[in-house]
Amino acid sequence: MLDKGGITEGALGLIEKKGYDGLTMAALARSLNVAPSALYNHVKSKRDVLLLVEDHLASLVDVSAFGAGPWEDAVRKWAWSYRDVFSRHTPLIPVIAVLPVTDAPQTLAMYETVSSGFRDAGFPEERIVSSIVALESFIFGSAYDVTAPADIFDPGTMAEATPSFTGAVRSLAEQGHERPADVAFSLGLEALISGLGGLRG
Amino acid sequence: MLDKGGITEGALGLIEKKGYDGLTMAALARSLNVAPSALYNHVKSKRDVLLLVEDHLASLVDVSAFGAGPWEDAVRKWAWSYRDVFSRHTPLIPVIAVLPVTDAPQTLAMYETVSSGFRDAGFPEERIVSSIVALESFIFGSAYDVTAPADIFDPGTMAEATPSFTGAVRSLAEQGHERPADVAFSLGLEALISGLGGLRG
Repeated sequence: MLDKGGITEGALGLIEKKGYDGLTMAALARSLNVAPSALYNHVKSKRDVLLLVEDHLASLVDVSAFGAGPWEDAVRKWAWSYRDVFSRHTPLIPVIAVLPVTDAPQTLAMYETVSSGFRDAGFPEERIVSSIVALESFIFGSAYDVTAPADIFDPGTMAEATPSFTGAVRSLAEQGHERPADVAFSLGLEALISGLGGLRG
Repeated sequence: MLDKGGITEGALGLIEKKGYDGLTMAALARSLNVAPSALYNHVKSKRDVLLLVEDHLASLVDVSAFGAGPWEDAVRKWAWSYRDVFSRHTPLIPVIAVLPVTDAPQTLAMYETVSSGFRDAGFPEERIVSSIVALESFIFGSAYDVTAPADIFDPGTMAEATPSFTGAVRSLAEQGHERPADVAFSLGLEALISGLGGLRG
């Protein structure tokens, strides 16, 4: 019996094997051993499939610390987990960043827990969504950064023409951080937590 | 005579008319009135063309306030301008977020000015790149948010099951902001400016 859970699982398997470019309705029907028409009974388009995948990924994001400890710790745990999940699925970012949440129950469940946590921490009602959006924008951008090549800031033949930037890139490299993306993420996240935290009444 | 400036202009015109999906090497050669082989003498692939477009967009980002006033004002002007430029070119974000800067002179010029501004403001050398990356991650994520539909947070039939989130969404809507994306961007940017600013010696 084909259902949305099975379609989601099939899509995740296909993405794992062939990447997001390999995810087509025809390939998905084949991998599920069903006729395309059977698949179309449940999902109208690849976009619908991506919505299912996105909603599944939202269920993997760790919101467990909201309501169980200080707001700062809860945001920290949520944000790192959110970034890690989507850094393995960056082709979804352009989709989810503009996707209405209407038919995504797990995504809505995540937002419900997070917004409750913000309210209980004393955020004014009308600033909760904007604060979450600001954090998510940072998280989505940072998910890409995880996948950036190590030499992304190599100025090449322009090193002499860009002494300030080249010096800063070298100085960071000399720190020998194993994951420079984590350093930038931590810097930005702590700045956001401390800055947004100031909105609490 | 075909040169990189002309190719960039042709690509921008094509993107304007047909979107990023319409930007193919064949279509670009046609719009430039040259044989594909002539185009391939200058750029090896669509990726090379995107690099030219990206580098051109970097030249539109306003870095003029670095060195001309307080660091906070310079970052603010740069970040708003950067977000606005890329919010009109979101299909480029997955490309540029992981693209080495090596052959992008205008992008490097932007980084040179920005990193000089951070150094002059008293940032420790080894934190400059990570601070810029944190800001850029926020800027790229926020550029998507500019293009999100107005109903992105409509909980639909799940409104009753998500009272906290639904209340927060309603409360924001009641503020009647013309551009809610600007509210979130301003909140996050000011938090980042104040938090990162604390790194200065």
